[in-house]
Amino acid sequence: MKLFSIKPVYAHCDLPCGVYDPAQAMIEAKSVYAIQTKMKDFEGDDRTRALFIKEERAELVKHHLWVLWTDYFKPEHLEKYPDLHDKFWKATKQAGECKHHSEPEEGQKLIEMIDEIAEIFKATKNA
Amino acid sequence: MKLFSIKPVYAHCDLPCGVYDPAQAMIEAKSVYAIQTKMKDFEGDDRTRALFIKEERAELVKHHLWVLWTDYFKPEHLEKYPDLHDKFWKATKQAGECKHHSEPEEGQKLIEMIDEIAEIFKATKNA
Amino acid sequence: MKLFSIKPVYAHCDLPCGVYDPAQAMIEAKSVYAIQTKMKDFEGDDRTRALFIKEERAELVKHHLWVLWTDYFKPEHLEKYPDLHDKFWKATKQAGECKHHSEPEEGQKLIEMIDEIAEIFKATKNA
Amino acid sequence: MKLFSIKPVYAHCDLPCGVYDPAQAMIEAKSVYAIQTKMKDFEGDDRTRALFIKEERAELVKHHLWVLWTDYFKPEHLEKYPDLHDKFWKATKQAGECKHHSEPEEGQKLIEMIDEIAEIFKATKNA
Amino acid sequence: MKLFSIKPVYAHCDLPCGVYDPAQAMIEAKSVYAIQTKMKDFEGDDRTRALFIKEERAELVKHHLWVLWTDYFKPEHLEKYPDLHDKFWKATKQAGECKHHSEPEEGQKLIEMIDEIAEIFKATKNA
Amino acid sequence: MKLFSIKPVYAHCDLPCGVYDPAQAMIEAKSVYAIQTKMKDFEGDDRTRALFIKEERAELVKHHLWVLWTDYFKPEHLEKYPDLHDKFWKATKQAGECKHHSEPEEGQKLIEMIDEIAEIFKATKNA
Repeated sequence: MKLFSIKPVYAHCDLPCGVYDPAQAMIEAKSVYAIQTKMKDFEGDDRTRALFIKEERAELVKHHLWVLWTDYFKPEHLEKYPDLHDKFWKATKQAGECKHHSEPEEGQKLIEMIDEIAEIFKATKNA
Repeated sequence: MKLFSIKPVYAHCDLPCGVYDPAQAMIEAKSVYAIQTKMKDFEGDDRTRALFIKEERAELVKHHLWVLWTDYFKPEHLEKYPDLHDKFWKATKQAGECKHHSEPEEGQKLIEMIDEIAEIFKATKNA
Repeated sequence: MKLFSIKPVYAHCDLPCGVYDPAQAMIEAKSVYAIQTKMKDFEGDDRTRALFIKEERAELVKHHLWVLWTDYFKPEHLEKYPDLHDKFWKATKQAGECKHHSEPEEGQKLIEMIDEIAEIFKATKNA
Repeated sequence: MKLFSIKPVYAHCDLPCGVYDPAQAMIEAKSVYAIQTKMKDFEGDDRTRALFIKEERAELVKHHLWVLWTDYFKPEHLEKYPDLHDKFWKATKQAGECKHHSEPEEGQKLIEMIDEIAEIFKATKNA
Repeated sequence: MKLFSIKPVYAHCDLPCGVYDPAQAMIEAKSVYAIQTKMKDFEGDDRTRALFIKEERAELVKHHLWVLWTDYFKPEHLEKYPDLHDKFWKATKQAGECKHHSEPEEGQKLIEMIDEIAEIFKATKNA
Repeated sequence: MKLFSIKPVYAHCDLPCGVYDPAQAMIEAKSVYAIQTKMKDFEGDDRTRALFIKEERAELVKHHLWVLWTDYFKPEHLEKYPDLHDKFWKATKQAGECKHHSEPEEGQKLIEMIDEIAEIFKATKNA
């Protein structure tokens, strides 16, 4: 059983390119959410650590989304998905909200927003 | 259609924890391989850039594998998979080989090694 | 003579906030351009080093622009400047072009695109 | 209206060089100060976050000052400004103080110290 | 008096290589321990800062150990020291424990584990 | 046989503090030198990789020296060693030279400069 195909599925970029995948942002977003689901039970040093691990993970969500937005998506995608910019803007803003807030609802909302982006991503790959 | 479930599937760790997933190493490994498949056609500045992007990606493969090895896997996993240490050691060494070498065979070998680790990971999650 | 006023001019953000300033992206963009103006004379090791310093600087341009876009700009700004998203998308894409290309025209174009963003930024600060 | 001139004003360095500008340290110092002006009202999670954002920003102040000191300034500048070393040493130490302390006076002192360095920088550029 | 010999003592690696030295992990581990010896007296902001400085230092311990394990050690070393993998795994896990815990005993244990690795390292260098 | 004493020898700093040690800069400087000793035999991809590994290592030398200068040394040390600032300035500039140049003489000079700093450091620790 192979969990990953050996054949890489990468973006049609011109030159030395990365392999784009919304899973990178999603994994970090799930970390954010996982921390938030536990935070109501955290006090003292544990809470402090949870806060800055959440801060780091949310920053990584932003980074992976920004890279996907700038480097993967092309003008023809934008034409087909005119709210693409807005989806990325709001998802990265929501990652910022997850730094401020510790309720799992915030992380869940972030996950849903990345999921919508992932659907568009998948559709463009299959196009 | 949801590409990712909202419910995060994270490791049973004690406290502020990350969400572990071999996909992080795999995505970077596929970047390494993607670059290698193109390198025979690269010269001059393009080759220089390809070399250091490959270097960075291979370093990220190492990092993600190291985190998985140290932070996710527990003594009980080691008991069941006694060659776990060796698999990680060889996979991270292979990521080093991918820095040195530009043949796609090296990247493919890396992908296969991460795939074996991913299978163990998956088995331990389902246990 | 004071080059900087002591009173910080920072964005109206809710909580622990940064001070936003397009100058951060601009300084890095000028580095990119400065390197490009010299590259036609560079060979061998110097060229290799110029390439990866340019790569790093262009990445910093992207990063500073992304932060400005997500963290500083608010929905009311977008309403007034409906092409804001597109300006950032194209500017960060142009930073990517500056990685690929070594002609100063590419860096100059990047500088002009950041300058347009800086004008919008300034207008929103004075509003 | 152009906020930035297109012509980059960069240091006379030999080879692949950056563009030096005390504005980089100053922007981060203003973030430090901005956080400090709000810290007396911060408690709990907000205070924790403010502390580590301040820590990061103060570290960036140090970094930008160090680069300016080592990479931009030349022996002839030192001859003309014999207390240059001391100004940088004290300014970077003050950035360290801003990590320890949360009173805006500390950040203001840092800003003033960077301002003095910026004046020397400007004088050397015009020389 | 020379504290360091000029002649570098580096690993027998094939190509562009680093100089491996367990001192890198040890210095960071001593920082972790130093912070832990003071933490019982720390409250409020000082404690928060101590926690994330400790977090960063412990992460650096992990990183330096991982590099040593993957990049320096060779199959022939493993043959001679069959518990090498386990020593590294447990030492990096102990660095993780030092993030969770603030008792100096945890840091002392980490130092002892790195010391054992350093002895093996030294033996392999003299072989 | 213990290679490292368990008792950490750290600087007399006020609060959450690091453990300072010129060995950190020295290890990286030895990497720089090690690479330079091999560079005359390097061509093509190997040379490219050697160049950017050397670049990274030299940057780390700078960083570790800067931290030592700003964070460890105190006004009383400066009084006793009035050329302390200059020694650090020149050593970090020499690290920059090692980025530009590939002759081992440059790296050796860097090592000697760090060695002088290390002697002062040791003297201040024993004071």
